[in-house]
Amino acid sequence: MPNEFHVAVLGATGAVGREFISQFERRNFPIKSLSLLASSRSAGQCISYLGGEIVVDAAISDDIKMCDIAFLSAGATLSREFAPAFMAAGALVIDNSSAFRLSPEVPLVVPEVNFAAVKPSDRLIANPNCTAAILLMAVSPLMSLGKVARITLSTYQSASGAGAQAMDELREQTGTVLAGGTANPRVMPHPYAFNLFSHNTPINEHGYNDEEWKVIAESRKMLGLPDLAIGVTCVRVPVMRAHSLSVTVEFDGPAPEVSAVREAMQRASGIKVVDDREANHFPMPLEASGQSEVLVGRIRKDVSHPSAISLFVAGDQLLKGAALNAIQIAEHMIAAGYIHPSNADDE
Amino acid sequence: MPNEFHVAVLGATGAVGREFISQFERRNFPIKSLSLLASSRSAGQCISYLGGEIVVDAAISDDIKMCDIAFLSAGATLSREFAPAFMAAGALVIDNSSAFRLSPEVPLVVPEVNFAAVKPSDRLIANPNCTAAILLMAVSPLMSLGKVARITLSTYQSASGAGAQAMDELREQTGTVLAGGTANPRVMPHPYAFNLFSHNTPINEHGYNDEEWKVIAESRKMLGLPDLAIGVTCVRVPVMRAHSLSVTVEFDGPAPEVSAVREAMQRASGIKVVDDREANHFPMPLEASGQSEVLVGRIRKDVSHPSAISLFVAGDQLLKGAALNAIQIAEHMIAAGYIHPSNADDE
Repeated sequence: MPNEFHVAVLGATGAVGREFISQFERRNFPIKSLSLLASSRSAGQCISYLGGEIVVDAAISDDIKMCDIAFLSAGATLSREFAPAFMAAGALVIDNSSAFRLSPEVPLVVPEVNFAAVKPSDRLIANPNCTAAILLMAVSPLMSLGKVARITLSTYQSASGAGAQAMDELREQTGTVLAGGTANPRVMPHPYAFNLFSHNTPINEHGYNDEEWKVIAESRKMLGLPDLAIGVTCVRVPVMRAHSLSVTVEFDGPAPEVSAVREAMQRASGIKVVDDREANHFPMPLEASGQSEVLVGRIRKDVSHPSAISLFVAGDQLLKGAALNAIQIAEHMIAAGYIHPSNADDE
Repeated sequence: MPNEFHVAVLGATGAVGREFISQFERRNFPIKSLSLLASSRSAGQCISYLGGEIVVDAAISDDIKMCDIAFLSAGATLSREFAPAFMAAGALVIDNSSAFRLSPEVPLVVPEVNFAAVKPSDRLIANPNCTAAILLMAVSPLMSLGKVARITLSTYQSASGAGAQAMDELREQTGTVLAGGTANPRVMPHPYAFNLFSHNTPINEHGYNDEEWKVIAESRKMLGLPDLAIGVTCVRVPVMRAHSLSVTVEFDGPAPEVSAVREAMQRASGIKVVDDREANHFPMPLEASGQSEVLVGRIRKDVSHPSAISLFVAGDQLLKGAALNAIQIAEHMIAAGYIHPSNADDE
């Protein structure tokens, strides 16, 4: 295969980082060399890749080796440090953090929704917040059915959104509680076993937390609708790795028929309709986990509003909400001819 | 105390039944004799009450002993059989099932919301669906701030709403999954450990499940607003015993100020405001469990609609959502002088 790329992953030992590696394998991503980077604390770990093992290196921003594509997944602070360094080394940077998402010159992309926002010369692309990505996968097919006037949603967000440590905490704390012990939160601010709580990010002056504010701002940017009305409540639930959303979409005009919504969802790339009323089978996070597709169901007219339809959605936070979407951005860039492998033989 | 009543509980061995008994003790309910009834399968069990033990009798509808107040909590089919029998025996019947909730001649009551719906002569009162009761506790204080035009909510409902067996299943199945085993649902239709699913009741032709339809119809009846727009999505989450609700209320006219909403909630009986933005401390099911009060927080203007405010609510499904509300109905009936103890000395 001619298109083989020198690829780097920053944050390779995190929950999202590990999904990058397994998605590279599963999707046969055209990799010539793979450099795995993390904090010095995690450096030296070995990660399996295609039957071999790769030693994780400590990331040092003034020592970035030549690279074609860099996936950054180590938080906004490190992205601000490392994105310029990778770009200087010639890389296309796809950044999973919030650092550049709202910068006007940086495209914020879910390929199925707005790959058209990318220019051939772009070398820094932002990957959206996981909830925004999963939401827009479900909402985007509706845009062809009418003018969307308002979106309201309540979320059911999994532990994975807070990282591998939060998943461990949910697992361990639940075991402790089942054994009759007491929850002692360390990673999360509140007991997590058999409990749920408002999303653990700071609250702004409007009474919205950071996660909710990201969903609003990022969805507006990706849809190109800077004034779109979006009401959102983000909640953390004791689920391991997929996010679920209860969504209502109000149109400017009468709501489309349920059959038209179902057909639009079935036609849409990356969506799987799970909507069996007879069997009471609808999107569930357990079934969304490990899946590339976002599950959409409970498609119905909102009986409280003549212009609204309601949906229930579940998507893997680590995949379409993070690693998979970032890789798909790169795949679309490759397919569009926006990036080419460097000619260097070494890394 | 002169007002001492012969009391019966049908369904005494269920999750709600056991809460009746502990609430009788905690609230010092004026009981002269307590008769605990259940199916013949559960008869013979001993239940502690005030330091003694009461043997559960098999319920036989043509052998109902004299009784002043009967609390029915054994499902709609048994309520239809036993309510007339208890009424014939002279009892005030407070029914926890859905059997009579929508009958025009039967008051459906949350005392803080609509005790005025009860006439002195009423001898059958329906206790609402748990989600409707908790919702109306939070919405009712808003009615004084403007005309409510639409309510939308998404729920986070606990295992207790499906009974003691569902709670056991959640506990056992979670242990199995933590030990590396596979979930084998028996009580619930889907795996429950670290998962969530659309409420496990049949779906009607509008695409709504029974639980959602109850929330709509019962809320309208209790508020006396038969056409009120209510949009609802009911979801079962892996939480043990309190229900949480993400609620948006749209007014006919501008939304009230957050401070006015908070004050109305603080004035309301049975509500505890948990709304600490600094500490990121809002209503959680774990903190609502075992509490008489319904917790209300995340009070904010809905940024997506000029007439709407949003709330997050948590209430103990077994208490305000069931046993406690039923007992409070009886307490209000006693305080209002609508019932008096019979003079019989035996039971």
